[in-house]
Amino acid sequence: MSTQIKGIAASEGIATAEAYLLVQPDLSFSKKSISDVDGEVKRLQDALTQSDNELTKIRDAAKESLGEEGAQVFDAHKLILADPEFTGAVEQQIKDQSVNAEQALDEVSQNFITIFEGMTDNPYMQERAADIRDVTKRVMAHLLGVELPNPSLIDHEVIVVAHDLTPSDTAQLNKKFVRGFITDIGGRTAHSAIMARSLELPAVVGTNTVTADIKDGDQVILDGLDGVAIVNPSDDDVAKYSKLASDFAAEKAEWKKLKSEATVTADGKHFDIAANIGSPDDLDGVLDNGAEGIGLYRTEFLYMQSDQLPTEEDQFNAYKKVLESMNGKPVVVRTMDIGGDKHLPYLPLPEEDNPFLGYRAIRISIDQQDIFRTQLRALIRASAFGELRIMFPMIGTLQEFRTAKSIFEEEKAKLVSEGVKISDSIQTGMMMEIPAAAVLADQFAKEVDFFSIGTNDLIQYTMAADRGNERVSYLYQPYNPSILRLIKHIIESAHKEGKWAGMCGEAAGDDVMVPILLGMGLDEYSMSATSVLRVRSLMKKLSTADLQTLAERAVNESLTNDDNIKLVSEYVK
Amino acid sequence: MSTQIKGIAASEGIATAEAYLLVQPDLSFSKKSISDVDGEVKRLQDALTQSDNELTKIRDAAKESLGEEGAQVFDAHKLILADPEFTGAVEQQIKDQSVNAEQALDEVSQNFITIFEGMTDNPYMQERAADIRDVTKRVMAHLLGVELPNPSLIDHEVIVVAHDLTPSDTAQLNKKFVRGFITDIGGRTAHSAIMARSLELPAVVGTNTVTADIKDGDQVILDGLDGVAIVNPSDDDVAKYSKLASDFAAEKAEWKKLKSEATVTADGKHFDIAANIGSPDDLDGVLDNGAEGIGLYRTEFLYMQSDQLPTEEDQFNAYKKVLESMNGKPVVVRTMDIGGDKHLPYLPLPEEDNPFLGYRAIRISIDQQDIFRTQLRALIRASAFGELRIMFPMIGTLQEFRTAKSIFEEEKAKLVSEGVKISDSIQTGMMMEIPAAAVLADQFAKEVDFFSIGTNDLIQYTMAADRGNERVSYLYQPYNPSILRLIKHIIESAHKEGKWAGMCGEAAGDDVMVPILLGMGLDEYSMSATSVLRVRSLMKKLSTADLQTLAERAVNESLTNDDNIKLVSEYVK
Repeated sequence: MSTQIKGIAASEGIATAEAYLLVQPDLSFSKKSISDVDGEVKRLQDALTQSDNELTKIRDAAKESLGEEGAQVFDAHKLILADPEFTGAVEQQIKDQSVNAEQALDEVSQNFITIFEGMTDNPYMQERAADIRDVTKRVMAHLLGVELPNPSLIDHEVIVVAHDLTPSDTAQLNKKFVRGFITDIGGRTAHSAIMARSLELPAVVGTNTVTADIKDGDQVILDGLDGVAIVNPSDDDVAKYSKLASDFAAEKAEWKKLKSEATVTADGKHFDIAANIGSPDDLDGVLDNGAEGIGLYRTEFLYMQSDQLPTEEDQFNAYKKVLESMNGKPVVVRTMDIGGDKHLPYLPLPEEDNPFLGYRAIRISIDQQDIFRTQLRALIRASAFGELRIMFPMIGTLQEFRTAKSIFEEEKAKLVSEGVKISDSIQTGMMMEIPAAAVLADQFAKEVDFFSIGTNDLIQYTMAADRGNERVSYLYQPYNPSILRLIKHIIESAHKEGKWAGMCGEAAGDDVMVPILLGMGLDEYSMSATSVLRVRSLMKKLSTADLQTLAERAVNESLTNDDNIKLVSEYVK
Repeated sequence: MSTQIKGIAASEGIATAEAYLLVQPDLSFSKKSISDVDGEVKRLQDALTQSDNELTKIRDAAKESLGEEGAQVFDAHKLILADPEFTGAVEQQIKDQSVNAEQALDEVSQNFITIFEGMTDNPYMQERAADIRDVTKRVMAHLLGVELPNPSLIDHEVIVVAHDLTPSDTAQLNKKFVRGFITDIGGRTAHSAIMARSLELPAVVGTNTVTADIKDGDQVILDGLDGVAIVNPSDDDVAKYSKLASDFAAEKAEWKKLKSEATVTADGKHFDIAANIGSPDDLDGVLDNGAEGIGLYRTEFLYMQSDQLPTEEDQFNAYKKVLESMNGKPVVVRTMDIGGDKHLPYLPLPEEDNPFLGYRAIRISIDQQDIFRTQLRALIRASAFGELRIMFPMIGTLQEFRTAKSIFEEEKAKLVSEGVKISDSIQTGMMMEIPAAAVLADQFAKEVDFFSIGTNDLIQYTMAADRGNERVSYLYQPYNPSILRLIKHIIESAHKEGKWAGMCGEAAGDDVMVPILLGMGLDEYSMSATSVLRVRSLMKKLSTADLQTLAERAVNESLTNDDNIKLVSEYVK
């Protein structure tokens, strides 16, 4: 009998395949005294050998699907298995204490992990602690006779079923065979959801119970449009969903035709749809989907993918490439947004109790100006090759914006005096993501060239709820009237001073949010490249005149997030 | 020659005394190989004996100044010194590894600390980790021949000079002899500042360098009115400050005369000045200072001072005592505000990346309703004994307020049906401390009986800056126009619906904020009991008509926090 599982639609599309449960098995054990010490040492050695063989297989599979770099982590694991300092210590512990191998392994690995993690000024050794943890898990699984999931060994089409998908989980997936994701936890902005959208795979998140409801090998239809999964579907289900899938494919084909069109509403108003990128590697997607510019270039990836601060020259080359490729279309580059949950191994930041309320983004840039000035110089030099707009993240006060802007002006003047050719029309703007700035948007609007609203942070600060924290995820409410009021105030403030306002958060491509934003007159919508054509198609069907009333009602009459979801669905249907 | 050190005025008053440097000495050491193992073991034993003798002295002094409870921690330390499992292991380590005593002590204590801290479900053992850390520090100091500060041994009048003062530092101070505090870090809302105000001791914080500028035993004049300290003062300095001190004493004597007066401005408008309390023990201060009510009863202390959830009866007795003592004056009781940085040993909360954006206060109460219902029952039963107002903390959405209110109504109906006598005029209101709620104050005002603005949290969320984080403390800006706009919106929204608005954050007693708040028409000002008379005196001199213009300008013309400090000082001078 088929069963239906409901969740949150996180990435569009429909897929059918076997379930692959990416679930960590229970590795708990009891401490035992052992009389047959030699037998116990043999158990350990068998588990080590099995682990090593398995790692060889995984390494080879990973090399094929992920390339040399993706396989390296498993080589590191094999080295630990071969290290007598580690495995020898476990063996010695069995002999000295007459304890079972599980207990000895756990004690020794805990010791190593504590020591390595304690080396807080040595990120290399801290990463080794994670490797030891992984290897210990593998050996423990063999000792206990349970199987670890090995996602890089997937060799047939699957739908991945998991409690949650972390970046390291997804890195190990063999994406050739993955047709979709479904998870217990998470919302539309979870890592797994963003990943799925960028891979154009259907995904359903936040089901609460899917890892209990689905068994490995179950046949699953995943519907990322409605946020449901059908387990062991009936013939009727199969027929229904293959129709839906072909309709969706037809719709996507329609969207593709919009690639070279401008974004125009039913009543003939033009808006800009831009794309978010993390590196020049993402440019193909931007061009393939006909984005009218780049609304957010997240430069922190340049810093995160390196093992030292990127030089001015490295940065210049990256920025130049992006500007040139966009061929005169605007490119909004956000200066380094490090801190919070993003760290650089070579730039130690203080331990903080609440990193999201801490030392990050422009706060670091203003404090450590060398790094900031290098980035600004690279940007200003690259400005000669396209339409550059510089955006400062996490601006909370007018002083911060003025300081950042004056540092920019200083570097610009220096480059001019050095005879470097630069653009004379670089715009400087700011992210609108801190409530204090949103409340004072009218005052900021007098000094900036543009605003770009960052919904994720704006929502999390306005609601005082970490969006990564499951216990308070119900407070991540993009349509809460408080959020909409702030957004409206930002847009109106910009327009009053003749400036433009955009949005580069997840919400800019959201079916419920877009009609409200059009009604408020938001100028620029920046989103994942894969969303551009869908939103262009949506806007073509909407008329701004109606939507102004909708936006008014959303802000003044609605009392809750859910009220606004209902309101929009009545308008748009 | 006298030198002047500038900082932030954190608690009023002037004091002169010797400096007492409460600074942790450098306890770093190098690992060494030892040939004379017996000699090294003797070094260890000498250090252990010296540490034990010192602890005996400290324990005795602590018992005299702090009582039996304050002395217990040192008994716990002595037990660790006498424990062969610990000291024996250090000795063994010296012998086994032929290392110096410092190295052996460090390794063994690290091991114990790791194990104890790992017992996350056993708060008792986790606290033992802190004890081992303290004892290790003491023994290490003796090994290295440096001296630890022993604040409980202070036996003459001093001004305490410290980098920062933690709650555990202040707990050990012999307060009989402490005349004031001065610290490197912190702002007006730091623990040390709040502590100083509640003890009515002058304090200066945020000097950055005072621990380097002042030597132990230096003569110091501390001026908590202007936020300066004079080191080794000249005769002129002494004369000047003794005049200032006697003026201040005279001013305080004037304030005392206002104890039984109502709070009335120069133009005859009446406002309420209330006091904040943490337990019935604070009632004396409230009554001595003539507060017109209690504007914030922080009930979480009831939970924190206990080793299990307080029963309905325990709570009822505490609430009844407070209501009865206030003799019909209003008492605003805030329901449990746990989470964030406040934990209960017997109520495990999840580890969170950003606890200030996490599971706390009303979010816990709505999720774990048993605890909440017990508290509400105790409160409703106590309502018969005075003028009770119940306030929910951390309300972010209308749904949360409605849920909390309906739980209150259910418990009230139950008690009525049980025949319990209760008041029929219990008001229910909410803290205004989350930006989302502040932005929607007009909608909340239709459903609440009152608002009380919590400035600390409101500022930290609106500015997206943890006020305990030194690196971003510059963003704790109470007079930032964004904060003032939200406050104005809250007050106006309340008044439009015929409700009242108060403030129970630090700012309610602040000389710069009070004139602005009067101009906005804030109804109730709740502060430390020791501030009540000063603020009553200030209000007597102010005229609300002028202040309305001031408030308008603060909100509409000022661009920055500093603009508003200047603006108010021009008006009030």
